[in-house]
Amino acid sequence: MKLEGVFPPVPTPFDSEGEILPHKLKSNIALWNQTGLHGYVILGSNGEAVMLTEYERVALWQAAREAIPRDKLFLVGAGMESTRASIALAQRAAEFGADAAMFVTPSYYKAEMKPAALINHYRVIADASPLPIIIYNMPVATGIDVDANTVIQLAQHPNIVGIKDSGGNVAKYADIVRAARPDFSVLAGSGGYLYPALCVGAQGAVAALANVAPRECVALYDAFRAGRHDEARALQLRFTPLNAAVTSRWNVPGLKAALEELNQGYYGGPPRLPLRPLGDEDRAALRKVMQEAGVI
Amino acid sequence: MKLEGVFPPVPTPFDSEGEILPHKLKSNIALWNQTGLHGYVILGSNGEAVMLTEYERVALWQAAREAIPRDKLFLVGAGMESTRASIALAQRAAEFGADAAMFVTPSYYKAEMKPAALINHYRVIADASPLPIIIYNMPVATGIDVDANTVIQLAQHPNIVGIKDSGGNVAKYADIVRAARPDFSVLAGSGGYLYPALCVGAQGAVAALANVAPRECVALYDAFRAGRHDEARALQLRFTPLNAAVTSRWNVPGLKAALEELNQGYYGGPPRLPLRPLGDEDRAALRKVMQEAGVI
Amino acid sequence: MKLEGVFPPVPTPFDSEGEILPHKLKSNIALWNQTGLHGYVILGSNGEAVMLTEYERVALWQAAREAIPRDKLFLVGAGMESTRASIALAQRAAEFGADAAMFVTPSYYKAEMKPAALINHYRVIADASPLPIIIYNMPVATGIDVDANTVIQLAQHPNIVGIKDSGGNVAKYADIVRAARPDFSVLAGSGGYLYPALCVGAQGAVAALANVAPRECVALYDAFRAGRHDEARALQLRFTPLNAAVTSRWNVPGLKAALEELNQGYYGGPPRLPLRPLGDEDRAALRKVMQEAGVI
Amino acid sequence: MKLEGVFPPVPTPFDSEGEILPHKLKSNIALWNQTGLHGYVILGSNGEAVMLTEYERVALWQAAREAIPRDKLFLVGAGMESTRASIALAQRAAEFGADAAMFVTPSYYKAEMKPAALINHYRVIADASPLPIIIYNMPVATGIDVDANTVIQLAQHPNIVGIKDSGGNVAKYADIVRAARPDFSVLAGSGGYLYPALCVGAQGAVAALANVAPRECVALYDAFRAGRHDEARALQLRFTPLNAAVTSRWNVPGLKAALEELNQGYYGGPPRLPLRPLGDEDRAALRKVMQEAGVI
Repeated sequence: MKLEGVFPPVPTPFDSEGEILPHKLKSNIALWNQTGLHGYVILGSNGEAVMLTEYERVALWQAAREAIPRDKLFLVGAGMESTRASIALAQRAAEFGADAAMFVTPSYYKAEMKPAALINHYRVIADASPLPIIIYNMPVATGIDVDANTVIQLAQHPNIVGIKDSGGNVAKYADIVRAARPDFSVLAGSGGYLYPALCVGAQGAVAALANVAPRECVALYDAFRAGRHDEARALQLRFTPLNAAVTSRWNVPGLKAALEELNQGYYGGPPRLPLRPLGDEDRAALRKVMQEAGVI
Repeated sequence: MKLEGVFPPVPTPFDSEGEILPHKLKSNIALWNQTGLHGYVILGSNGEAVMLTEYERVALWQAAREAIPRDKLFLVGAGMESTRASIALAQRAAEFGADAAMFVTPSYYKAEMKPAALINHYRVIADASPLPIIIYNMPVATGIDVDANTVIQLAQHPNIVGIKDSGGNVAKYADIVRAARPDFSVLAGSGGYLYPALCVGAQGAVAALANVAPRECVALYDAFRAGRHDEARALQLRFTPLNAAVTSRWNVPGLKAALEELNQGYYGGPPRLPLRPLGDEDRAALRKVMQEAGVI
Repeated sequence: MKLEGVFPPVPTPFDSEGEILPHKLKSNIALWNQTGLHGYVILGSNGEAVMLTEYERVALWQAAREAIPRDKLFLVGAGMESTRASIALAQRAAEFGADAAMFVTPSYYKAEMKPAALINHYRVIADASPLPIIIYNMPVATGIDVDANTVIQLAQHPNIVGIKDSGGNVAKYADIVRAARPDFSVLAGSGGYLYPALCVGAQGAVAALANVAPRECVALYDAFRAGRHDEARALQLRFTPLNAAVTSRWNVPGLKAALEELNQGYYGGPPRLPLRPLGDEDRAALRKVMQEAGVI
Repeated sequence: MKLEGVFPPVPTPFDSEGEILPHKLKSNIALWNQTGLHGYVILGSNGEAVMLTEYERVALWQAAREAIPRDKLFLVGAGMESTRASIALAQRAAEFGADAAMFVTPSYYKAEMKPAALINHYRVIADASPLPIIIYNMPVATGIDVDANTVIQLAQHPNIVGIKDSGGNVAKYADIVRAARPDFSVLAGSGGYLYPALCVGAQGAVAALANVAPRECVALYDAFRAGRHDEARALQLRFTPLNAAVTSRWNVPGLKAALEELNQGYYGGPPRLPLRPLGDEDRAALRKVMQEAGVI
């Protein structure tokens, strides 16, 4: 498995009652399959994983497996607050054919999540997991920002293959790239800094933006790989506002609304409470951002 | 139901393999029943609720119900990241005989958890829950600090009966006491400020300290109620270091170790990973704190 | 010197061009002198000290000294980013007859301001200062929250006589009261928690609220000293919103506007930029808060 | 004036008594003049500006002016807490021949420093300043992180020519580059992300690293300008640890020690208290970092 390329963290389709719609996940993936994306993250932060029961998680993975071609990576979010539940979920994901599993840092007992505790947590998972594991650093959700030294130490474990880092600190990415083993992948956690992350040696990104502008994200990635820096930079600048729209500005509700506004057959639907769908005013503002980015 | 008094958030007993031990929960409660405590919180933060499966939660509630006398309050932690899962858990807790349920603020999508979203979340739960509900503010774990105005608005709902606030901001407690309906209870979230919280009108506390010094916490509460302020203050000052030991300093692992060190028959046991038991050096330091507080 | 009682951190009067008005400071103090306050802090945070030149500071201290009777404490803010400048200012304050000097924690090099550096900073000042010194903890301005252990260690120095702590963490106050030498004073840094701070052993407060409700703050203090807890609590609850108005809600501009709205002869005037005076809407809201608190 | 290139924020030389040594500043600059640097920042954060009196600031500027050739930019830090003091300092800097002045965000009244207040502050300065002005965003010192929209609005003022942003958020740099006028410069605030910042359109950097590795920083800049991305990336990765050593890890004391360790004639000397010189152990660790980076 080569952990590189552009991966959308796909949203979970719910109906108006809040029930999961696995067939809509499949039809969305079928559309994304035509765009050049290198794989998918099923049940990351944008998949509202923390809102789902174990039964629902499994049903969605099963549907995803049926829709994802074997030449694209099938990554799953499997991080839970306890080490044992994380391992259990990794085992379930393996049964359902995932290629690797991402584990967000536990965060409820923040004060205890010092480097030694995190290192132990990830090593125990890595020892037990039938799947290669990816560290998932998501400070805006967890209040924890895994430092470079912790990642560099964890990168020595043969079953820990990369990190998805949504902290946006590219100096840290450079630090990890410099010191970790060569085949350890750093994936940017947002499309807002995909190009500069690649510049310092990241291998790609898990980016909400890739859900709504998949071809453009792949084009940026390809331009960088081919050494066409001006083209990569231009794409990066062009998509900065749309990236913000589906992340910091309107979050998952914005991402789901944007999928609908694309009008290309993607299913968006409502988020689960306590997240709430975009109101009309925000929806209009979102459309404007999408128009300016040239995706509608 | 009168939500007042001193309530320990009891830890969840695990064996050395990490399996729950409901009978140890029962035997612990049987010991606490002799101390004058006004009730219990089963599966709060100190109960490692985020580490447990739904099956385990229910098994522990069932055991607790059998051990808790009807004249003491049986409070449960039932807060989940999604509103619907929180409601589902409240319904299960009602089936198992709980008196009221506490709901920690959802926190994964922090940026979206603005007052309007939180108000909606709690109102939807309060409408649907068969049990009276208690807001649970726990900034150190969630990164969210519910403001006084949000609480005051929520206090208008007849099924929202109180708040457990672990923020320690007694000026906020005063603000809520001043503006909320008279029978809305503010419970301090730690024994570190039980007395000053009572002074400004709080009705009691959910305090980890009450697990290891139950009689003394009740004595402080009784002294305050009887107007014996000097006695209350003296108890407050005396227990400040032990309170820190089982909260900010060593957290749940410290609480479990302290129960063992009491040597009164309480079961402590290990926490679940990623939490780790106290090492020998910390254990010795804990004993010293307990000796100085006069509990061993 | 007994560091106890209620002290307003008085605002600095500026004219419409931003020039200091020492005679207005004197006339304000003359009015406060009739209210029972135990002294004054000249050039604390509410005095916009960071906005002033050394020349202006000295001119204001000189004016204050002329207006403050010898039986009230004349406290000054003298904390600067460098240790040597702090000492120099303490020496100037001594020349102008101050009784003690408060030193806010240096904060520009936050990451370096670990306990050992702060302890060294305050000890060097305490050794050199001709005046008794008071630690000033102001996390909302500095981003630094001095911990209890640091304070307890500093309290061993004979020339460090107290702390003004605006963190509002009364559990920490209790910790300091328990462990520091008996004549070390803890002063609450806000009127929002004056009563609960007294309950755990604080000796008084430096409170913006005392500028606009001096008699009531003194009444609360006296009620507590006399053991009339219900009266103290009632005053505390009554003044919570007005306290917020002149601190967290509208800050120094709110405090200056409130002095004007009292209509008792106090001079308020504009703050210095970048602070801006209250607009009409906020001014009207402030008046409402003052009416509800019964001060106008 | 074209605000582009690599600028060291030079440290202020003190003797062992803490007195400024303007001639050592001159001799240091004479050495740096041979390295290809594009100019200097005199009295930024690394210049311990907050520790200095106005007299000392002027003496240091005067010395710097004598040492800096006219074909290199002479930038000064002139940000004070009050708008008027900032303007006064800008005027003094103009008298002493500076080319432009940087103004760190006021931060003492953090809660009031909302976008509207900051925009007003910078506009008033820009209107009055005889020098072009540069916004200085330094969240780690100030606790304030100026957002992209605020910068974009300020960039419309003809006398606001750029921002030095030490936040390290290159996605924000991209956002500013995209929306600000073409000749508005974004300068990275650290050598830890110089290359990725250039990639998204920044014009250079004010970097502590440039004090101790001036030729290498200029080489990175030149490599980027010439399109030699692999060389730029290699330099970036190589200098990541040394950059951390003179910023986040050991701060100004580390920078001063590193200058001494270079053994090339630069004067380091002690910082002013409360900053403290590096101890022996840290000094040895610093040497190791410098050896690994190949600068000694």
